[in-house]
Amino acid sequence: MKGPAVASADVTSTPLLTDLYQLTMLHGYYASGMEEIAVFDFFVRDLPPGRNFLVAAGLEQALDFLERARFAPAEIEWLRTLNRFPDDFLDHLAGLRFRGAVHAVPEGTILFPNEPLLRVTAPLPQAQLVETRLINLLHFQTLIASKAVRCVLAAPDRLLVDFGLRRAHGAEAGLLAARASYLAGFAGTSTVLAGPAFGIPVYGTMAHSFVQAHDSEIQAFEDFARAQPEGLVLLIDTYDTERGARRVVELAPRLARAGIRIRAVRLDSGDLARHARRVRAILDEGGLAETRIFCSGNLDEYALRALLAAGAPIDGFGVGTRLDTASDAPYLDCAYKLAEYAGIPRRKRSEHKATWPGRKQVYREYDDRGRMRRDHLGLDEVAAPGRPLLEPVMEGGRRLFARRPLAALRQHLVEELARLPEPLRALDPGPPYPVEIHPALAKLAAEADARAG
Amino acid sequence: MKGPAVASADVTSTPLLTDLYQLTMLHGYYASGMEEIAVFDFFVRDLPPGRNFLVAAGLEQALDFLERARFAPAEIEWLRTLNRFPDDFLDHLAGLRFRGAVHAVPEGTILFPNEPLLRVTAPLPQAQLVETRLINLLHFQTLIASKAVRCVLAAPDRLLVDFGLRRAHGAEAGLLAARASYLAGFAGTSTVLAGPAFGIPVYGTMAHSFVQAHDSEIQAFEDFARAQPEGLVLLIDTYDTERGARRVVELAPRLARAGIRIRAVRLDSGDLARHARRVRAILDEGGLAETRIFCSGNLDEYALRALLAAGAPIDGFGVGTRLDTASDAPYLDCAYKLAEYAGIPRRKRSEHKATWPGRKQVYREYDDRGRMRRDHLGLDEVAAPGRPLLEPVMEGGRRLFARRPLAALRQHLVEELARLPEPLRALDPGPPYPVEIHPALAKLAAEADARAG
Repeated sequence: MKGPAVASADVTSTPLLTDLYQLTMLHGYYASGMEEIAVFDFFVRDLPPGRNFLVAAGLEQALDFLERARFAPAEIEWLRTLNRFPDDFLDHLAGLRFRGAVHAVPEGTILFPNEPLLRVTAPLPQAQLVETRLINLLHFQTLIASKAVRCVLAAPDRLLVDFGLRRAHGAEAGLLAARASYLAGFAGTSTVLAGPAFGIPVYGTMAHSFVQAHDSEIQAFEDFARAQPEGLVLLIDTYDTERGARRVVELAPRLARAGIRIRAVRLDSGDLARHARRVRAILDEGGLAETRIFCSGNLDEYALRALLAAGAPIDGFGVGTRLDTASDAPYLDCAYKLAEYAGIPRRKRSEHKATWPGRKQVYREYDDRGRMRRDHLGLDEVAAPGRPLLEPVMEGGRRLFARRPLAALRQHLVEELARLPEPLRALDPGPPYPVEIHPALAKLAAEADARAG
Repeated sequence: MKGPAVASADVTSTPLLTDLYQLTMLHGYYASGMEEIAVFDFFVRDLPPGRNFLVAAGLEQALDFLERARFAPAEIEWLRTLNRFPDDFLDHLAGLRFRGAVHAVPEGTILFPNEPLLRVTAPLPQAQLVETRLINLLHFQTLIASKAVRCVLAAPDRLLVDFGLRRAHGAEAGLLAARASYLAGFAGTSTVLAGPAFGIPVYGTMAHSFVQAHDSEIQAFEDFARAQPEGLVLLIDTYDTERGARRVVELAPRLARAGIRIRAVRLDSGDLARHARRVRAILDEGGLAETRIFCSGNLDEYALRALLAAGAPIDGFGVGTRLDTASDAPYLDCAYKLAEYAGIPRRKRSEHKATWPGRKQVYREYDDRGRMRRDHLGLDEVAAPGRPLLEPVMEGGRRLFARRPLAALRQHLVEELARLPEPLRALDPGPPYPVEIHPALAKLAAEADARAG
């Protein structure tokens, strides 16, 4: 049943990776000649329980998609086989490109509920077609960056490495989780492809299978050390953690004579705090005070906090599954909603899902010490107190600026965190940050309601 | 920072989508000349809370990967820039292909903890290199199929459609969630690309933006109906659900005169049971008894059960975010573990993570009525009571059989569900299904422990 489309399509940029209703609506717009300018916002309605703020991420991939999205001829042919769309509409689809404008907050910006991360201004069909994939890209990286930054806040002076690829939800999730966690302050990732794709440092140790495949654990350690002498990390819990540590001590002088230093040991099971203390003592007594302890195994920000609060002598953490799946809150309640069409502000009023109309802007006020004090959700054209956060990033379907290096985005988030009110830096829920609706926006909403009445 | 590898690589088949430690271990094996045959199992250690069984899925994509995995020249060049691997090893990597054997249970098979879904038998470096991506592929679809089947069990006679692409974790997750949920019994998906990719029926309605973009709701309905007269579904909750339903009744005769039938209305917000009852009454009184009610909005198996238990007159459901992210249990505790190397059975004994050695087989016994009675986790070469579930699917790196059509996999799961003990079909936790360790396997484990001593 493999059709022609998949063979030819880049899954990450085809507009066929969308919900069918986008195409049926486009057909409706086409049939009615509705091609006026539309404005859509992408925002998060509510924070998941326990979260105090969001870290905006994914803009780079969203802009890549907008620049590259187009139907391949084979995809148009596949759509024809549905007998659902007339030929003239399919010809129109074949030529469709995104030629609109985008405003967005820089990646690494801290945001709160209802504040747009991104605003699209484009002819209605163009803005509609890109909805599903834009959400898919912005949602995931924002989800992961907002989780990863909590690990960074829980263990600010430890080495944090993303280990999550294997249980991430597919290839792209693993790759983009590496990017989002690096943006949030992780030192790097175990995902090799994230190196060439994004310039992210890659880290690696060894797995249990390497030890098991050898007839003795110490032989496995020695073989591995001689093959990978740089940045050597030995995994010591395959059979018995403390015995593994003693074997490391036994092996160390032999390796030292070959000029090989054991950089760290890794623990991956059991009570990590207890094992880390015992292993630390064994290493110290064995003259390996310089050898670090690195831990992994079902970790998240809460586990990091508990281990460090217990004084566990752990120097670094591999954070995997619970990070890459954002396991305690695996989705954000986000949306991409029409705010204006043909010059008229619009909103929906569905129960618990009402949205704000118009071309919005987020204005942020700071206190004397530079800490965030209050945001205003207002209109782009009506000045409000504070600094506007959304800036133009795309015009006529082309980026306005070169790609920002990830290093700059990481630095931006460091500065944002320094401005975050102290109670919101904690893992536990803090007081809600004030986001006030500007009177000009409230007035616009009332007018839209009266019109839709 | 974009390197050459990404430009040339198919992200879904490059072995560079892996953990760095796979490459460092391969280098260790290469340096020591360790290339004997290894046996690895993929299995799930424990069920997430509330789950009674697993549905195996993802084999087709796993075999695709094994057949296609190879390093592109640009990827080898990128690895060279790490200054971590010697040239002779990189030349060796460039020529590496998977030429091993695979045994697996058919997709759609019901399994329980510790039972292998798949077993790889190959020279150690080949079997090691593919670990990360094999887990990534098998884990995700098994996760989603095991969640989706619960929706099918909760609403067996309703139309179920996957709506989850936008909040799925990236492109591949959305696409493979459509496949896994269809395998589990869903009628189809809203993800268009799943049509050409897998032959899955695609479903679509309309979004709020279509209604909002029009100056009147009824005009939006009429425009949409005239453009998409076949299988027409109107979304009626943009402003006020019951008023939307009355507008549908008002519009129906006009559409009927044009030969257009309103197939269904969709509700997406508020108290769905209450709204569905009121809408049903409005439609019935308006002569639209044939018009179905379709619901969406934060649904999962528990919501479906509650709505149907309340007698809500709902004919179909769009299940999205909570399905595609498996939100109540977004990962499975799964592993790919070495069970034999160079003819010697192996196991790890890490705390709470010990594994079973040897070339294993799952034997399943049935009662007189054909219901599953008990499984035995045993050895391939030592017969045990019941039918063996793992079968050869790949030899020398090539598939032994043509692709199985998804229709056949769906049918297989239907038969599996008919054999599942009644208490395990419930959404709530049932008694654990008995999986007994065969004495021959227990003996092998004791021998492996004695050897690893």
